[in-house]
Amino acid sequence: MTAPTPIRGYTASKDQLLARLRRAQGQVRGIEKMIDEDRYCIDVLTQISAIQAALDKVALGLLDGHARHCMHEGAAEGRADEMATEMMAAVGRLMKRG
Amino acid sequence: MTAPTPIRGYTASKDQLLARLRRAQGQVRGIEKMIDEDRYCIDVLTQISAIQAALDKVALGLLDGHARHCMHEGAAEGRADEMATEMMAAVGRLMKRG
Amino acid sequence: MTAPTPIRGYTASKDQLLARLRRAQGQVRGIEKMIDEDRYCIDVLTQISAIQAALDKVALGLLDGHARHCMHEGAAEGRADEMATEMMAAVGRLMKRG
Amino acid sequence: MTAPTPIRGYTASKDQLLARLRRAQGQVRGIEKMIDEDRYCIDVLTQISAIQAALDKVALGLLDGHARHCMHEGAAEGRADEMATEMMAAVGRLMKRG
Repeated sequence: MTAPTPIRGYTASKDQLLARLRRAQGQVRGIEKMIDEDRYCIDVLTQISAIQAALDKVALGLLDGHARHCMHEGAAEGRADEMATEMMAAVGRLMKRG
Repeated sequence: MTAPTPIRGYTASKDQLLARLRRAQGQVRGIEKMIDEDRYCIDVLTQISAIQAALDKVALGLLDGHARHCMHEGAAEGRADEMATEMMAAVGRLMKRG
Repeated sequence: MTAPTPIRGYTASKDQLLARLRRAQGQVRGIEKMIDEDRYCIDVLTQISAIQAALDKVALGLLDGHARHCMHEGAAEGRADEMATEMMAAVGRLMKRG
Repeated sequence: MTAPTPIRGYTASKDQLLARLRRAQGQVRGIEKMIDEDRYCIDVLTQISAIQAALDKVALGLLDGHARHCMHEGAAEGRADEMATEMMAAVGRLMKRG
């Protein structure tokens, strides 16, 4: 008997997140090709900004599911403060970009 | 009889937030003076980055208190989803800077 | 006899920059007041995002004048590399926000 | 006879940029796997922040080479203003992330 798959806050839109990430991967490959072909720098930068925006959306999607879960269950699980601290650290990293 | 002051999530560190904001205000005035005196552009930009960092800290401080409150009370108040939606919109604006 | 005022890249729109900064200062004061009056956290965060956006505009305005100056004069002054290094450090700080 | 490859400002460190992008691609694949396996949301967010930081470095590397080129050649090519306008638009997009 195997352990049950944990239900993460983002399970609902998992397919959507995976689709976005696959697209982001294709975009990174595209940038690699642009640089390999010595394409104009400004055009490459525009593409990088587009990937950053896509990754921001994935991050916000994950964070949304997580926050929702924490607000529903945090008090009941007695982990409200722990969850808030952990989430704020993640938000801080996203704002500073790593 | 007046209505009681609402207890906001950030009440605890209110003095600290106000002190930081007063410092940020002084920094903005400092930049005004630097530009008025035609100081070197790069030095002005360094100061602007310092203010943005200070405002990020104020924002994270406010958000932390708010998230903590929502995770403790969200479920009990029956507003968990509403609170999560509202908070994520604020995080999105902070990441995009307005 | 006094030394002449140096002509900075941003002299052109100095009045505009100063006006924007004065507005930003008023906004920071407004946030102080909001926190002092225990206003709703999310509304304060919206205001902070607005200031961040205003300061970004001031920074981009300064940087634009500076880049323009460097591209016109960098080669003639024999300081092209030095100017590029210095400018990129400033851009990096703006992207990381301090 | 084929047209010569244009010399872009970033040619010098092209191998380094390509290596960084390949690593970023691996990281995006890693995140896909993490989400597919329902890994803890906060850990996925940490990885996303790491990719954002890596892409920021690629962008700054490209921009540095470009700015250097513009400051050396902008005046001679009579395109100083055009180059500055174009570069500032790219910086603005990077700061706003797309």
